[in-house]
Amino acid sequence: KRSISPSAEELTQRILQGNNTALSQAITIIESTAKKHSTTAEAIIKNCLPHANKSVRIGITGVPGVGKSSFIERFGSLLTEKGKKVAVLAVDPSSSVSKGSILGDKTRMEELVKNPNAFIRPSASGTSLGGVARKTREAIILCEAAGYEIIIIETVGVGQSETAVHSMTDFFLLLKLAGAGDELQGIKRGIMEMADAIAINKADGENLKAAKLAKTEFNRALHLYPPKDNGWIPKTLTCSALENEGIKEIWDLIENYISEAKETHYFQHHRNQQNKFWLLQTIESRLKTDFYENPTIKEALEEQIGLLNAGKATPFQAAERLLGLT
Amino acid sequence: KRSISPSAEELTQRILQGNNTALSQAITIIESTAKKHSTTAEAIIKNCLPHANKSVRIGITGVPGVGKSSFIERFGSLLTEKGKKVAVLAVDPSSSVSKGSILGDKTRMEELVKNPNAFIRPSASGTSLGGVARKTREAIILCEAAGYEIIIIETVGVGQSETAVHSMTDFFLLLKLAGAGDELQGIKRGIMEMADAIAINKADGENLKAAKLAKTEFNRALHLYPPKDNGWIPKTLTCSALENEGIKEIWDLIENYISEAKETHYFQHHRNQQNKFWLLQTIESRLKTDFYENPTIKEALEEQIGLLNAGKATPFQAAERLLGLT
Repeated sequence: KRSISPSAEELTQRILQGNNTALSQAITIIESTAKKHSTTAEAIIKNCLPHANKSVRIGITGVPGVGKSSFIERFGSLLTEKGKKVAVLAVDPSSSVSKGSILGDKTRMEELVKNPNAFIRPSASGTSLGGVARKTREAIILCEAAGYEIIIIETVGVGQSETAVHSMTDFFLLLKLAGAGDELQGIKRGIMEMADAIAINKADGENLKAAKLAKTEFNRALHLYPPKDNGWIPKTLTCSALENEGIKEIWDLIENYISEAKETHYFQHHRNQQNKFWLLQTIESRLKTDFYENPTIKEALEEQIGLLNAGKATPFQAAERLLGLT
Repeated sequence: KRSISPSAEELTQRILQGNNTALSQAITIIESTAKKHSTTAEAIIKNCLPHANKSVRIGITGVPGVGKSSFIERFGSLLTEKGKKVAVLAVDPSSSVSKGSILGDKTRMEELVKNPNAFIRPSASGTSLGGVARKTREAIILCEAAGYEIIIIETVGVGQSETAVHSMTDFFLLLKLAGAGDELQGIKRGIMEMADAIAINKADGENLKAAKLAKTEFNRALHLYPPKDNGWIPKTLTCSALENEGIKEIWDLIENYISEAKETHYFQHHRNQQNKFWLLQTIESRLKTDFYENPTIKEALEEQIGLLNAGKATPFQAAERLLGLT
């Protein structure tokens, strides 16, 4: 009789054999907030790590309604047809079906869900982006150990989630619609600046002309930014998930980008930068939590804020006093 | 015979009497990095604090060439004519005359420099924005204690200096030129979003028509943002420092804004928020410095980054190890 909780070693073995059930179970353990799971989770990650890092990680973002699910369905199917194993994960700190996370609604990706070479996993739940992002980064390691060669990380772009996805992927694709009029929004939130490519989706039927026009416009907007630090100038394309048009061209673009990045060693350099970013981010977030959640500080902070509001201390004096308490 | 280094008490007394020489000396002591000055500096700030906070603090930004110095000359002179005492400070972390800081070149503000009711002080030097901003905030306290009713904080907008100035002022004015084509730049860097008003300068002669057009365009752009949290919708105006046109209208706008903000208590609420922001900012920056400058951490950090780059640890594992060392 099989144990309900398989050991970390057992799970790792089956993950390395490419067993999707084991992969799912292991991700559930990693996502668990139960204390009893944390040792197992750590062990699985440790075991999988030497087999990780060999994939291409692609970030995909776009507002609800842009057609992300249909796009990923087509894009993922194209890749599996090419013999690749494709995992689809999501970063959505507000995760729930009603909030529009495509992965909550797997029925929109009928083909891919049934495909044995595809693995689809909804976003970890949780309200802190940091927490959700960490779980996703750990899930990437497990998927890579299970032999997934392309990892797609999808986000609906709540809060800073695009920034999180951008900093865990090798290529960042922004899906857009023609005439949505949200160019300013994209510039303002810094999303345009993060994109390695913009694909205008729903470039079909009556919409085709507008999509081509939008392509020109986004292209011009992209040229206002300096080239990326690897010299890459982001590209704009049109596609139709509905008619399965332009999807192949997007993959060709990404494939070229990645092979060039590997040739110039930018690929590894970029991943190293991302690792360092997450390391520092994790440290700094813990330093703050430890400080502000200290009961002595909590009480003294209220007191100092009172003095500030009464004009009886400067923020710098108050900071010194608080820092002196630890 | 007068001592070369007057005591904190002496300096405070003379500051409270409105003595500009004492004010200058005290600011120099505050800006000093010499250890021997820090006790005096703290004492002066402590003594001045009960007499501070009564001014209106106005932030002014704009790219070099927009005419900030001529604008401040006219604007400041208008205020002194109205019987107000005006102090002009600057936040410029790259401070040096060659970098275009207007206050380095006082000759551009001939009238204001000679005016006994005006006090002009170049930016504190220093390469860290945090350091420069802190000194400026402390200088504000001293100027207020010396009876300055309007404090103008100017910045040329290097790095994040607009954000710093925005978070220490009650009203943030963005100076622009017609047809400069840097709208995108302003949106991208979030400066448009911070502005309480935009003034198109050099609206004179052949430039007048273009300035009026720019006014309409910036107005439209501003309406794409949600109203500020006090319900304020930023305004756009035109002015000419050269012809002394539109300057009075800008002051009228600011005066109305401030009196309304005081009526609704938003004024104090906003200053409280700013104080809290600077408090947390100072704490967090020190927590990080203390951690990263710890020699044990410095060494271990290099080691962990090595493991990360070799794919032998996750950023989260490395963070745990480093945090465990303190």
